[in-house]
Amino acid sequence: MPMTLEELAQACNARIEGGDPTALLTSAADISSAQHGQVTQLTNSRYNKYIKGSAASACFVAEGFALPDVPPTMALLVCADPEMGFIHAITLLHPERHYPPAIAPQAVLADTVSLGIGVSIGPYAVLGEHSQIGDHSAVLAGAYIGAHVTIGKHCRIHPYAVIYDDVVIGDHVIIHAGAVIGADGFGYKFRNHQHIKVPQVGNVVLGDHVEIGANTCIDRGALGSTTLGIGSKIDNLVQIGHNNKIGRHVIMCGQVGVSGSCQIDDYAILAGSAGIADHVHIGQGAVVMARAGVAGDIAAQTQVFGSPAKDKRVAYKEQVALSKLPELLKKVKYLEEQLEQLQPQTESR
Amino acid sequence: MPMTLEELAQACNARIEGGDPTALLTSAADISSAQHGQVTQLTNSRYNKYIKGSAASACFVAEGFALPDVPPTMALLVCADPEMGFIHAITLLHPERHYPPAIAPQAVLADTVSLGIGVSIGPYAVLGEHSQIGDHSAVLAGAYIGAHVTIGKHCRIHPYAVIYDDVVIGDHVIIHAGAVIGADGFGYKFRNHQHIKVPQVGNVVLGDHVEIGANTCIDRGALGSTTLGIGSKIDNLVQIGHNNKIGRHVIMCGQVGVSGSCQIDDYAILAGSAGIADHVHIGQGAVVMARAGVAGDIAAQTQVFGSPAKDKRVAYKEQVALSKLPELLKKVKYLEEQLEQLQPQTESR
Amino acid sequence: MPMTLEELAQACNARIEGGDPTALLTSAADISSAQHGQVTQLTNSRYNKYIKGSAASACFVAEGFALPDVPPTMALLVCADPEMGFIHAITLLHPERHYPPAIAPQAVLADTVSLGIGVSIGPYAVLGEHSQIGDHSAVLAGAYIGAHVTIGKHCRIHPYAVIYDDVVIGDHVIIHAGAVIGADGFGYKFRNHQHIKVPQVGNVVLGDHVEIGANTCIDRGALGSTTLGIGSKIDNLVQIGHNNKIGRHVIMCGQVGVSGSCQIDDYAILAGSAGIADHVHIGQGAVVMARAGVAGDIAAQTQVFGSPAKDKRVAYKEQVALSKLPELLKKVKYLEEQLEQLQPQTESR
Repeated sequence: MPMTLEELAQACNARIEGGDPTALLTSAADISSAQHGQVTQLTNSRYNKYIKGSAASACFVAEGFALPDVPPTMALLVCADPEMGFIHAITLLHPERHYPPAIAPQAVLADTVSLGIGVSIGPYAVLGEHSQIGDHSAVLAGAYIGAHVTIGKHCRIHPYAVIYDDVVIGDHVIIHAGAVIGADGFGYKFRNHQHIKVPQVGNVVLGDHVEIGANTCIDRGALGSTTLGIGSKIDNLVQIGHNNKIGRHVIMCGQVGVSGSCQIDDYAILAGSAGIADHVHIGQGAVVMARAGVAGDIAAQTQVFGSPAKDKRVAYKEQVALSKLPELLKKVKYLEEQLEQLQPQTESR
Repeated sequence: MPMTLEELAQACNARIEGGDPTALLTSAADISSAQHGQVTQLTNSRYNKYIKGSAASACFVAEGFALPDVPPTMALLVCADPEMGFIHAITLLHPERHYPPAIAPQAVLADTVSLGIGVSIGPYAVLGEHSQIGDHSAVLAGAYIGAHVTIGKHCRIHPYAVIYDDVVIGDHVIIHAGAVIGADGFGYKFRNHQHIKVPQVGNVVLGDHVEIGANTCIDRGALGSTTLGIGSKIDNLVQIGHNNKIGRHVIMCGQVGVSGSCQIDDYAILAGSAGIADHVHIGQGAVVMARAGVAGDIAAQTQVFGSPAKDKRVAYKEQVALSKLPELLKKVKYLEEQLEQLQPQTESR
Repeated sequence: MPMTLEELAQACNARIEGGDPTALLTSAADISSAQHGQVTQLTNSRYNKYIKGSAASACFVAEGFALPDVPPTMALLVCADPEMGFIHAITLLHPERHYPPAIAPQAVLADTVSLGIGVSIGPYAVLGEHSQIGDHSAVLAGAYIGAHVTIGKHCRIHPYAVIYDDVVIGDHVIIHAGAVIGADGFGYKFRNHQHIKVPQVGNVVLGDHVEIGANTCIDRGALGSTTLGIGSKIDNLVQIGHNNKIGRHVIMCGQVGVSGSCQIDDYAILAGSAGIADHVHIGQGAVVMARAGVAGDIAAQTQVFGSPAKDKRVAYKEQVALSKLPELLKKVKYLEEQLEQLQPQTESR
């Protein structure tokens, strides 16, 4: 939705410096590619080099941010938090797709489904017995909602996400396409030379403001729940096994794997492809770096690296030492020879 | 389905010690959270601490298992195999969802589809030409079954699982949501500076009692079949490439990757995120530990760790040694200095 | 489609040596399993051992390839490029499934959808507003095409692939089942102790002849596009984050992860489960070996291994050195003792 510079500045609580207040802004872009009619941001001096030649019509910057070579065609939008200002601008210029509050005739809803007001159900969505969808939530095309599922308000369930029976989802939750919430956990007992399935009769509980990436899987508890707290954000292709208790505002990047029965405290960050063995406790605010493999508990606020994962500083030190190891082998061989020569001639090893 | 203690004990072949035989049990829970009306199990003395304060109404234990401080409100269900007894109890108290033997009017079945008795086909399921579904199998909402697919008896295909053409599936197989069975293997020939697709015209054959996790992918053979033997269990987000021959009762945990043309023998276990290069042979009962990267053959009954994977004991020894390496570097430097001083003064390196 | 030896030889530009030109060939198989009526290939002398006992009716070989013990029942199909000849033979004997150029009555197409000639739309496919499908493309059962999506000619979109709004797809592109193209990138700003979503308003652009594996995810740009160049081939369960710029003829094997804002140049190869941190540049033709974790730029034509990834030769040398480390620790201890004995007795450390 195009807006004038003046309208955008007002909506984003920014002060205009330079430029034409009536100029029309049509979209947002990053500083390296923004063109005439576009708004951008600059919050890191590393990117100052892009300013001089930029054709952007407006640029969010922080109060007091020193900017050389601002082209005369570029207005500055000065505010206390330019990143948040820019996010707001993006939201205004690129409004989210609106899904009409209606039930597609091609959806299949069990008789006992309960829908809030303003709910949108897309074609080929399937909603099972006793499922409930809160106000203003959108269940998009082909999303599958099992029986006895509860979904809160203002949620968006993307196409072909699958929510198995009994899952409970809070408000403002986004579930991307292909995510599978509540499939069976991976549990077997070995008897008579075969693996006997342990019934997985628990569920999954997702707090408010959780976002789940595409094709991510979160297994139901074997007994009891697998839980994610308020505001936790999970990227694509993440595997979260049964009975994990994941706190609030936790971040898991792409392809992370969490085995089962772990406790991951608030604000922990699991970087890309990190893996956590079962029954592990990750403390509050701990950071598991990319590709780390964690087999034991991690203290709050610590950072771990490597597989098996260790304190980041220890792991880095070992990596540096490892790079010196081939040379060290030679040195020790030389020392052995030297020492040999120093030995009394009669001695023999 | 609630049952009395007496009924449950009888169904599970357990002997009651204490408690009220007419007490009603409504569900199962683990020992740390079980409440009044719930049954639990205790098979590991590590969890004995939970017994004293537990409100559980019944607890499966092994014959002769010493349990101190059993609350008077808790009946013991004593049997030879309490884990299996408890599994049976869960099955009785939490019966599986029943899918009625009917074809949803919103399903699309090719004219040449053949269905056994008691088959359930959910809404928006699609079954291609000449596909066959065995007795009492359930193809749930939106599952896609290609042409010339054979599915055995008592199978359950969950929503949006995709079974490509020509796949053969045994009896009692479970395929979870979003799993893709029989997509093209990843094969190209490099000619004239581009990758030319090698047609993938084989199929996938899954034995009886196989279970495939959510969003797992098993590629069809380029020529011939990719096969999984009886009773093999595959977790979520696993990638199994073309022409792998996987034996019986093999376990693959979440996010495992198997390249192609591997042979994995019976009872092998691939732990979470393990990866296997192509044309590798994993011997019977071998264990590939979590995150291990296997590039060469693994002998039967061995355990490997690390990437590149080595015998577990060797790999552990190297890990221990690595942790001493930074200190070793200092030691060798000291030795060099000491040795320098011992050298005759006239010598110079 | 069965063909005579003579027909096949002519279609594949091969010269027949031996065998009966009128013999019927019905299918293709690999050399280790090919039976009567099947054609195979032999291009690597490592597999010569299979020739003697083979029942294959025909075998592609290179001009001048020395083959001992050819059974009298086997015709040789001699040509300059037997691999390409064999591929062509497979294509002829195992023709691709044909999808009729028709729109299934169970598909939902927005009024503003534009379809080329010969387009096939399967049941339960959903095509959003202003989406365009080029000539002879097939959108199979249940594929979801968002709004303002452009798909070129001769594409095949498999069941339950999800193409989010605004994605642009070239000609001759194959997208396998469950792949998700254009879901939101993973971007948040941390404010007031919570993660605030950064709107993801860019898109994904796929060049001609791209192939995307099952359940792979390619995120839309935050601003601007995530791009894949002509001829790039992506295997299953790969995660490609937002704003990556991926060149032409790039290969990514199963479970690769690419964070975001990376530049990956033409002909690069990322082997299975390799991971790339954000803002990394991978040079042309570089090879990232299986399970490598790349945190810094990789020069063109180099090969890297390990995590953190290093030049292959360096990494291998370190791995060899690591295997000698436990022994080295013992050696150094022995040296210390020897040196101690050589020290003047009055000295004490």
